[in-house]
Amino acid sequence: MDKKRIFSGMRPTGDLHIGHLSVLENWIKLQEEYECIYGVVDLHALTTAYEDPSEIRKNGRNMLLDWLSVGLDPEKSTIMLQSSVKQHSELHLLLSMLTPLSWLERVPTYKDQIQQLSQTGKNITTYGFLGYPLLMAADILVYKSEVVPVGEDQLAHLELTRELGRRFNHLYGKEIFPEPKALLAEVPMVPGIDKRKMSKSYNNYIPIYSNHKDLQEKVRQMITDPARIKKDDPGNPDICVVYSYHKIYNKDEEKEIADLCRKGQIGCVQCKKKLGDKLISFLEPIWLKREELAKDEKVLDEILEAGNIKAREMAERTLQEVRDIMGV
Amino acid sequence: MDKKRIFSGMRPTGDLHIGHLSVLENWIKLQEEYECIYGVVDLHALTTAYEDPSEIRKNGRNMLLDWLSVGLDPEKSTIMLQSSVKQHSELHLLLSMLTPLSWLERVPTYKDQIQQLSQTGKNITTYGFLGYPLLMAADILVYKSEVVPVGEDQLAHLELTRELGRRFNHLYGKEIFPEPKALLAEVPMVPGIDKRKMSKSYNNYIPIYSNHKDLQEKVRQMITDPARIKKDDPGNPDICVVYSYHKIYNKDEEKEIADLCRKGQIGCVQCKKKLGDKLISFLEPIWLKREELAKDEKVLDEILEAGNIKAREMAERTLQEVRDIMGV
Repeated sequence: MDKKRIFSGMRPTGDLHIGHLSVLENWIKLQEEYECIYGVVDLHALTTAYEDPSEIRKNGRNMLLDWLSVGLDPEKSTIMLQSSVKQHSELHLLLSMLTPLSWLERVPTYKDQIQQLSQTGKNITTYGFLGYPLLMAADILVYKSEVVPVGEDQLAHLELTRELGRRFNHLYGKEIFPEPKALLAEVPMVPGIDKRKMSKSYNNYIPIYSNHKDLQEKVRQMITDPARIKKDDPGNPDICVVYSYHKIYNKDEEKEIADLCRKGQIGCVQCKKKLGDKLISFLEPIWLKREELAKDEKVLDEILEAGNIKAREMAERTLQEVRDIMGV
Repeated sequence: MDKKRIFSGMRPTGDLHIGHLSVLENWIKLQEEYECIYGVVDLHALTTAYEDPSEIRKNGRNMLLDWLSVGLDPEKSTIMLQSSVKQHSELHLLLSMLTPLSWLERVPTYKDQIQQLSQTGKNITTYGFLGYPLLMAADILVYKSEVVPVGEDQLAHLELTRELGRRFNHLYGKEIFPEPKALLAEVPMVPGIDKRKMSKSYNNYIPIYSNHKDLQEKVRQMITDPARIKKDDPGNPDICVVYSYHKIYNKDEEKEIADLCRKGQIGCVQCKKKLGDKLISFLEPIWLKREELAKDEKVLDEILEAGNIKAREMAERTLQEVRDIMGV
């Protein structure tokens, strides 16, 4: 039987961090079981970065390097650049005709994000930002994707995609779009080093691509149990950022470390050093592979272009049907 | 010196009527002085016809036949199909990123049209319909048009195009888009046969393409001075639809007819017959040319494809600059 098709993407808005790594590890697993299309969704990046888009291309290249170095395989998956596959723009416009405004205005994150970003001085009360979930729907539907790996926070967007596909099928009396199902990934939540949500804008993140010194420094800055003053005070690992990382990246020693911390038998400095070393041994092979890949810019171009060509073929088949039905 | 560039378009929503003829006569004049791009804007037709788009292609072909038969010349102008030049969709999406929602919500015709069409059972409170003026801006800006022939009712749309071009240039610090100037055409207002605005939805129009019998019948139905009962009652030509047509299409006899009407010396039946004959002698050469053109479907395809190719080249030059600036 044919593999089911998946589309997923990431916005090239800056360094990928260790939170994205968990998402990527999930993508890598999915490669085996599904026909995967992974997109550098640069048009989505524009919705919030249109005022200063100068970094989008660079970010896109760096993101691609990260993807490949953690193990995304262009032989198994289609890796593409959204803006290079024009069918995304075209389907976005065609679907816009049948998208009720109220559906977009009602997306729960819409007003929150406008408010959040207005605090940073960004004005995103634009037509493009309102259309963000529609562009996402076009990304997914253009490949007739059947499955979409999403986090909880994106379920509302996916629901809109499903509704829009149904509306199209119903309006024109033809089953063109399958209903993409959510694949809720079991992705561990990694906190930022200051315990808030890990985010580029808080500058509290651990980038995937780094080096020994910077990484150890990031770990050194992690917030621990504030009640612990001296190193032999008993600590509470449950409220310690360092410990939440041990639970993910140092499973073997996790229990022992919690125990020692509670008894005041391991100091935070030593505990952080252990974590730093563990993270480095985990990330270093990725860094090396990335540096190897970065040596030849041309290889990246070729991978992307090959993916774009495959993506265009798939997308064009859908568009031919859609254009016929919509009479254009 | 290079000719200035013009873009203008018509929506393939149904038969062209004699009101459009005046617009087309203006287009034909402009061909001599400007580099003209005339578009069958089928994507715009979708904003209101998305629920039943089955006629769009047929209407587009008929419109093209009308254009050519009245004298639009593919040797002089670029005649293209909007949906076949993908750069329109692409620029629409890119410009959407920097288009404030409020600009679109504020377009004077926006709420009026939603209300008007809701009375006919059409629901156009869609994202696509809100974006109508933005798509029009993309049509104009994608060719860096310098001049746009418009009617009074479209000045607000053109103003949005100008503002958007300025906003782009200012945001990215580069003069990419010239400010297109309105060319207010002196187009005579032709009323519908029932004296209301000529419109397909009122079914009160005189199509450009017709025949002797149907045309005479349309003229016969025109509303005259309601106070005139018998044919020798004195009439008031100033409130008579037939007379408003004599003023445009029968300039030689216009004054005499008004005079005879006021004295009750010409009956409405005779007056209508005169107008019908005049319209036929004016339209018949167009009908014959149209029937000649309609014989060979392939010629139409070739004209459109040649125009699309030229349009794509011009549009692609603009898009290359825009993509570079916006980092995609």
